[in-house]
Amino acid sequence: MTGERGGGTWELLLPAVAAPPRRRGRMLQSALRDAVRSGRLAAGTRLPSSRELAADLGVSRGLVTEAYEQLTAEGYLRSGRGAGTWVGDAVRQATPATRDLAPRAVGAGVDFRPGSPDLSLFPRTAWAAAHKAVLSRLPHLALGYPDPRGLPELRTALAALLTRRRGVVADPERLVVCSGVAQAMTLLGFVLGARGLRALGVEDPGAPEPTALFASAGLRTVPLPLDAEGLAVGPLTASGLRVVVTTPAHQFPSGIAYSARRRAELLGWARAVDGYLIEDDYDGDFRYDRSPVGALQGLDPERVVYTGSVSKSLAPGLRLGWMLVPESLAGEVVERKRTMDLGNPSLDQAVLAHFVTSGGYDRQLRRCGRAYRERRDALIDALEEHFPGTEVSGIAAGLHVIARVPGRYAAGGVLVKRAAAAGVTLRPLADYGTATATGPDDGDVRLVLGYAHLTPSDIARGVGLLAGA
Amino acid sequence: MTGERGGGTWELLLPAVAAPPRRRGRMLQSALRDAVRSGRLAAGTRLPSSRELAADLGVSRGLVTEAYEQLTAEGYLRSGRGAGTWVGDAVRQATPATRDLAPRAVGAGVDFRPGSPDLSLFPRTAWAAAHKAVLSRLPHLALGYPDPRGLPELRTALAALLTRRRGVVADPERLVVCSGVAQAMTLLGFVLGARGLRALGVEDPGAPEPTALFASAGLRTVPLPLDAEGLAVGPLTASGLRVVVTTPAHQFPSGIAYSARRRAELLGWARAVDGYLIEDDYDGDFRYDRSPVGALQGLDPERVVYTGSVSKSLAPGLRLGWMLVPESLAGEVVERKRTMDLGNPSLDQAVLAHFVTSGGYDRQLRRCGRAYRERRDALIDALEEHFPGTEVSGIAAGLHVIARVPGRYAAGGVLVKRAAAAGVTLRPLADYGTATATGPDDGDVRLVLGYAHLTPSDIARGVGLLAGA
Repeated sequence: MTGERGGGTWELLLPAVAAPPRRRGRMLQSALRDAVRSGRLAAGTRLPSSRELAADLGVSRGLVTEAYEQLTAEGYLRSGRGAGTWVGDAVRQATPATRDLAPRAVGAGVDFRPGSPDLSLFPRTAWAAAHKAVLSRLPHLALGYPDPRGLPELRTALAALLTRRRGVVADPERLVVCSGVAQAMTLLGFVLGARGLRALGVEDPGAPEPTALFASAGLRTVPLPLDAEGLAVGPLTASGLRVVVTTPAHQFPSGIAYSARRRAELLGWARAVDGYLIEDDYDGDFRYDRSPVGALQGLDPERVVYTGSVSKSLAPGLRLGWMLVPESLAGEVVERKRTMDLGNPSLDQAVLAHFVTSGGYDRQLRRCGRAYRERRDALIDALEEHFPGTEVSGIAAGLHVIARVPGRYAAGGVLVKRAAAAGVTLRPLADYGTATATGPDDGDVRLVLGYAHLTPSDIARGVGLLAGA
Repeated sequence: MTGERGGGTWELLLPAVAAPPRRRGRMLQSALRDAVRSGRLAAGTRLPSSRELAADLGVSRGLVTEAYEQLTAEGYLRSGRGAGTWVGDAVRQATPATRDLAPRAVGAGVDFRPGSPDLSLFPRTAWAAAHKAVLSRLPHLALGYPDPRGLPELRTALAALLTRRRGVVADPERLVVCSGVAQAMTLLGFVLGARGLRALGVEDPGAPEPTALFASAGLRTVPLPLDAEGLAVGPLTASGLRVVVTTPAHQFPSGIAYSARRRAELLGWARAVDGYLIEDDYDGDFRYDRSPVGALQGLDPERVVYTGSVSKSLAPGLRLGWMLVPESLAGEVVERKRTMDLGNPSLDQAVLAHFVTSGGYDRQLRRCGRAYRERRDALIDALEEHFPGTEVSGIAAGLHVIARVPGRYAAGGVLVKRAAAAGVTLRPLADYGTATATGPDDGDVRLVLGYAHLTPSDIARGVGLLAGA
């Protein structure tokens, strides 16, 4: 079909005009557009007159005229002076894309990598009820462009929640709702970068995510060593840095809680260098054997940026988190949030506010806490049974532990490989930091074992598989 | 209460211990923390022994010991060697914040500023039903960390929708879900900035938002003039720029649709300079008197970045939009989206996917289209009645018109001021561009009148008030 007129050559348009009358015009336009795009109608091809094509296709002439006009307006066709319609030469095809929309296969193995809560604990019924309640009473205005700081009612609810549960100083005016801790880091990266900061400290060992997030804002991260009380002050002071990311309530991944002395020393450091501590309270909600250690931010809200989210307590897919921002950074953080996305979706915020104020959030935390504690116990029991002599630390809180498996079972690399062959995914502590930070070369294997997303029976099965391997 | 021991001085803690037994410990800790923070317990103050305080307050000694331990662990208190507990010196107070949580007062005036849809048209019942349906069948995995490109089922649904409604080439693999058109601009700003771009063109007159959004990525915007067919090619070519933001289906604010010839010329320009056209299809869903003009992107998906959102069709508060990204930019856009927020909330995406595939979105567009057409007609009628001689343009589509009010009614500045005094908010065209772009100095007043968010009776009342002023 390259330029011939009349008859059978236009039959590729017949399926379109076989559509019900209401959709016929649109289908004809689509079919013509596709034919031009695909090259079946090449640039310069002269189209039959609308009268001829209408007769060929057995449709009204108006339908064809309209299609020609529409596609001419859009630039697919061009009309000559007086008469005639040709295929235009503006069209180009898309480069084909690789296909990878298929969901990832989920095997029957056991994955001990940390980071995910149990998604099956998401309170679907209560969440749907909160959504319904909110939609029935939300003022229309709340569906408009959001406040980049967050919905006032959510900020008020979260401020009360965090004050009560985490011992922070939470003024709703300093609380910024954001898309999880990841966005909090990115926002801070841009704000601090705009002030000339070029690098900031992270814990070693520590979570890998901040490095990529701050890099997106042009900032380098410098790993800084821990000691038994938390981030070591000497190396921090010597680094000349002015900002450092910390996990004082339950250091990730080591599991230690910063000592009171270290907390005071770090605040002293921040004041001395006119800097900031970024406090990632990533799992502050889960503490099993005593009250959670209050957040560092409570001691000095002008030197600590506090950040947390519902990713562990509800679901990461909600993308809802918060920051408590010092006065000195608040305006810039909000402005950056505005340009990044104008603010978080307001309906989601209203649902979370309702969920918090109605007590649903506290119930969810208790429910998760019970489940995770049981899983932690299952993991410790299974390790004791199958790997006696293994030392487990960081067990008082959170969603993971550190297991130091005696070297007599297997060398580190060998263990991880054999585990993988048996369907068990493990992450060695060495993945989270530099060699000096992740343990001496004593032959023992240090693993970061996440348990929250696994049922007690999966945990037992996984450790059993590991022992078999 | 500054250091004295014993008796009545600790009575500020009494309300806390009057709490029900289950909450008593936590309340005592809170009250102590607050007392330290507020300075009522100054640094260095020695606290009574746990035995003494327990006796004073009439509570168990364990409760006090636990509170002391907890606050010591957090750094509010410190324990001396052997005995004694003092208030620590780490605590600093927050700088007080300005209070502005109160919702903005909504007057009885009429606001003709464009940009907002009618939020009362949001389909609350259908949306709640979609949310419920989705929550009852969503796999757990979909609540985990999202795909930064968007939920596969939403990308597939949107690709089909946009192909059908907007004539784009929409491969789900090239569709990136984002937080509205604003985030699309910011994402593109960072991606293009990382490639060395320093400036890009915007339409003059045009929407003011892109300038701030691109500035956040370090890019400058250069206003480029329009002519009757769209963005003028001469000045664009002379500018030496390689990227330009356009609204070809319904230019904002002038209301013209780019001609077919201009579309082809602009694509030719983009190919010649190896550049991109960013197509903001901000109100492509609303066209009243003929089929919508297909998107420019359909003609060359490798030179046009297409972007749109549900902000006009559903609600800006949902923060849901999309981009169709050329192969040459796709990887970088997705990576930038990942570091900005890890991806849009997955539950919202699943709800929109359900809403689109179930036909709810098409119904909503028809409903809004009917309502907006009626409002446009009401506005035109009211202007004809009260301001005969006014020329109204850009009426074929969208949510606003341009009204050229003859100078005999009032000079521009006077009209806007008198309107404000009468409770009518107006935005002159001059607000959207440079003086040369927004009309000759002929004494006529050019206004951009948004009507979508106003009922027909509000519109009539507003124009009436204006005539009275």
